[in-house]
Amino acid sequence: MKTFINGKPESTVPVLNRGLNYGDGFFETLLVKDQTLPFLSYHLQRIRRTAIILDLEINEPELNETLEKALTLYPDEGNFCLKIQFIRETSGRGYGYQSRTCDQIVSVFSEYINRGWQRPPACAGFLKTHITVNQDLAGLKHLNRLDSVIASKELNENGWDEGFFIHNDYVISGSKHNVFLVDSNNCLITPSITIAGIAGVMRQYLIDQFDVVEKPITAQDLYQATSIFLTNALVGIWRVASLDGQQYSDETKLNQIISSIR
Amino acid sequence: MKTFINGKPESTVPVLNRGLNYGDGFFETLLVKDQTLPFLSYHLQRIRRTAIILDLEINEPELNETLEKALTLYPDEGNFCLKIQFIRETSGRGYGYQSRTCDQIVSVFSEYINRGWQRPPACAGFLKTHITVNQDLAGLKHLNRLDSVIASKELNENGWDEGFFIHNDYVISGSKHNVFLVDSNNCLITPSITIAGIAGVMRQYLIDQFDVVEKPITAQDLYQATSIFLTNALVGIWRVASLDGQQYSDETKLNQIISSIR
Repeated sequence: MKTFINGKPESTVPVLNRGLNYGDGFFETLLVKDQTLPFLSYHLQRIRRTAIILDLEINEPELNETLEKALTLYPDEGNFCLKIQFIRETSGRGYGYQSRTCDQIVSVFSEYINRGWQRPPACAGFLKTHITVNQDLAGLKHLNRLDSVIASKELNENGWDEGFFIHNDYVISGSKHNVFLVDSNNCLITPSITIAGIAGVMRQYLIDQFDVVEKPITAQDLYQATSIFLTNALVGIWRVASLDGQQYSDETKLNQIISSIR
Repeated sequence: MKTFINGKPESTVPVLNRGLNYGDGFFETLLVKDQTLPFLSYHLQRIRRTAIILDLEINEPELNETLEKALTLYPDEGNFCLKIQFIRETSGRGYGYQSRTCDQIVSVFSEYINRGWQRPPACAGFLKTHITVNQDLAGLKHLNRLDSVIASKELNENGWDEGFFIHNDYVISGSKHNVFLVDSNNCLITPSITIAGIAGVMRQYLIDQFDVVEKPITAQDLYQATSIFLTNALVGIWRVASLDGQQYSDETKLNQIISSIR
């Protein structure tokens, strides 16, 4: 694992850091694959959109430097994970901020082995843990992620690879992935991300490439699906084998989608 | 400003810190007043309750050491602010955690001047910014505070000292304080904290000391109040002079309450 701040090797941040104190910042998780950055334009689009909503200004040359480093740091082929955190400049005590400047671009490089289609299909369940709801922040990959942290305990206790958050009877997302289903008409569906959840890069890519319906979905919709799969930028696409005991084995549509991104 | 980690002078935390990465921790803000810690039992009660909900184990000797330091660090009389952060031990990449241990107690001491009753009464308004809703986390002073950060921009733009979050037509709290109202029957009322907001130490003290009704309240309830005030552990009690243009001048009940805690 290698860590940098603003392109310089660095392993610590100040105690008064607003990312630590309030979660005042956001992050992006990218796959580095054989010295390329797949879906880079999607990541950049989300970075810029998030910065606007959180009233942050990104130093573009420093961002570019970080991305270039990703292409040269590991000379070998293979998969690596690049996590970039964008953190607001520290000011005095309290929630209020004096600066729109994101003065710390923190990058963490680590190894990443198996993508979704290289793993055994996932075992999933429905979470009792509640997803955090805030329509101002929905879709953003901000630093306030306690709901997913708490959900991880429920995953462990149940032996699940992933769990689905439900809010007011609607499935929002997994705790670490977005979710898609294929219905009995071979239609590809994913939950709307309007009040909670992260609008993932792989999710957006599939929406742009395939006929995907974004709409509210229920647990019943997932039970009646012919197949279900999980997505994020690292895992790509990961088939769900079982949900709450129900088995899914139809891989026709799934294999078609996977072959388009592999 | 002086900063410590586990009682040792320290100004940085690791980049991989789970507080920074996910907001996986919580904090407590205490007033240090003339070398005493008012309401300490309330703070300790909230620390222990929060640790249980977040599945964290606090090192009690280290916590005690931090609190003792607070009483000796500033030999002069006066008001100081002690912010203590409790952060989960770092493990590998991802939301999941391998440890219940809170291995970093981060303490930040800073000066604090005017308490609520020493300040001009507050000017307040209703926020368009949404409060983050999660019934698992409601009441906790956890590190996921982006809603209050975003609200601070709205306060600045409107020249307000405080703004009230509204969710589904109900007032939840201020962005930095709890809120109380005195109604026309001289009854003391504060919103329930069941789905969002922080259950403040001063709020709990008033509930224990006075006949306070905790119930859902609306903007209309605030407009019709004879007086409104803000509370937190640092400010104590701070009268609201105006809300959305409406003036409040009845200080009878308020002065009685203030004199009990001053």
